[in-house]
Amino acid sequence: MVEKEKKVTIILFSGEMDRALAACNISIGARTMGMDATIFFTFWGLNFLRKDKPYLKNKNLLQRVMAILNRGGRKKAPLSRFNFLGVGPELMGIMMKNQNMLSLEEAFRTAKDMGVKMIACTITMGVMGLSEKDMEESLVDEYAGVATYLYEANRSSITLFI
Amino acid sequence: MVEKEKKVTIILFSGEMDRALAACNISIGARTMGMDATIFFTFWGLNFLRKDKPYLKNKNLLQRVMAILNRGGRKKAPLSRFNFLGVGPELMGIMMKNQNMLSLEEAFRTAKDMGVKMIACTITMGVMGLSEKDMEESLVDEYAGVATYLYEANRSSITLFI
Amino acid sequence: MVEKEKKVTIILFSGEMDRALAACNISIGARTMGMDATIFFTFWGLNFLRKDKPYLKNKNLLQRVMAILNRGGRKKAPLSRFNFLGVGPELMGIMMKNQNMLSLEEAFRTAKDMGVKMIACTITMGVMGLSEKDMEESLVDEYAGVATYLYEANRSSITLFI
Repeated sequence: MVEKEKKVTIILFSGEMDRALAACNISIGARTMGMDATIFFTFWGLNFLRKDKPYLKNKNLLQRVMAILNRGGRKKAPLSRFNFLGVGPELMGIMMKNQNMLSLEEAFRTAKDMGVKMIACTITMGVMGLSEKDMEESLVDEYAGVATYLYEANRSSITLFI
Repeated sequence: MVEKEKKVTIILFSGEMDRALAACNISIGARTMGMDATIFFTFWGLNFLRKDKPYLKNKNLLQRVMAILNRGGRKKAPLSRFNFLGVGPELMGIMMKNQNMLSLEEAFRTAKDMGVKMIACTITMGVMGLSEKDMEESLVDEYAGVATYLYEANRSSITLFI
Repeated sequence: MVEKEKKVTIILFSGEMDRALAACNISIGARTMGMDATIFFTFWGLNFLRKDKPYLKNKNLLQRVMAILNRGGRKKAPLSRFNFLGVGPELMGIMMKNQNMLSLEEAFRTAKDMGVKMIACTITMGVMGLSEKDMEESLVDEYAGVATYLYEANRSSITLFI
């Protein structure tokens, strides 16, 4: 039998701005209520932990292609609907501001400041053409694999795949 | 330590017809087996709780644009694949009927009649350009934020993000 | 009150190669750590349990159309981003190989060999134009509906919708 703590563990797989916002908002809400919160970033979700510019040294051709396709990190993330070649995220950004909602950048910083644990998936970093030099040290708490995720999630009262 | 009840709590973030159907079918199945079921509608998922026509009074320009882009509610929801400018949902609708499966509209009404609790996320309603006047009173049980979601989900044996 | 076991139960709804890989990697990781793992395949996820060629006998016109649109099973699955008319999956396949990561086909076979339980959702098979003759017997452990899913998920320490 497993014992559960008041804790939310989220896998952030998606690269879309609105889905990342949902992950941040749930995590910030959890911390506000005294719960633990961990986000495990994998596949396209890794873009949210990246620096703006891709680090291209010591990478093979394909890793460079992937790094450039995905460039921009948090600032270039599309919307999951009505993206309209980048107009959608701008529009949603303005509406969020009008509603006094945190922007994506602010949401990540706030989550971090409130103690949301952010783990970058080492297995998929290579597949996405990313090395530790691409990642923002001020955001990443830990580089780890699926075993760490399972350990965290097993004890969590809420598990989500976003 | 957290105690868990036989209960499913779903966040419906997506605006696609097939994903909403999955949320309804899981919730209806849970109620049939005597479990509790709650769906928390946020971002594009809020479209499934809307009236067909957008309510445009007392809205600023951007809120109107968002409300009109998203118009149609349950009836205009696209498929997550093979949408083909709206032909996909029609096709799937016919196949569902041939299989005696509930249509999206019927699935929502059945879920409601069977006691599935439906909560509209107040934080994202503003961002999507929605006010309570846009929402179908016969479907929404409660307007609430992330704290309510976390309270429900902490006690739930099954938590999903759709 | 519900008792939880160390077990992950995943609904695989999506038809994308990268999401299916995530489902396999989490399940394989769980089995490696001695946990139970079940994947419940529904809607587009059913494509991953299919034979390459659609079985067209005894099907009506619409079922044939759906079966042909979805043809190819594991081998034709698109990426959730940067699909580029099929170039994306090839590219990711090469990067996965360079990182000694299992291919999608290997991931499914490995998951199966390690005892990941694979259940095909009977309710949605009809809607997707699929019969048991379309499915690969070597992968499917069970044909079942939402009640079976709920039974498995209620006891699971980790529940995910992918």
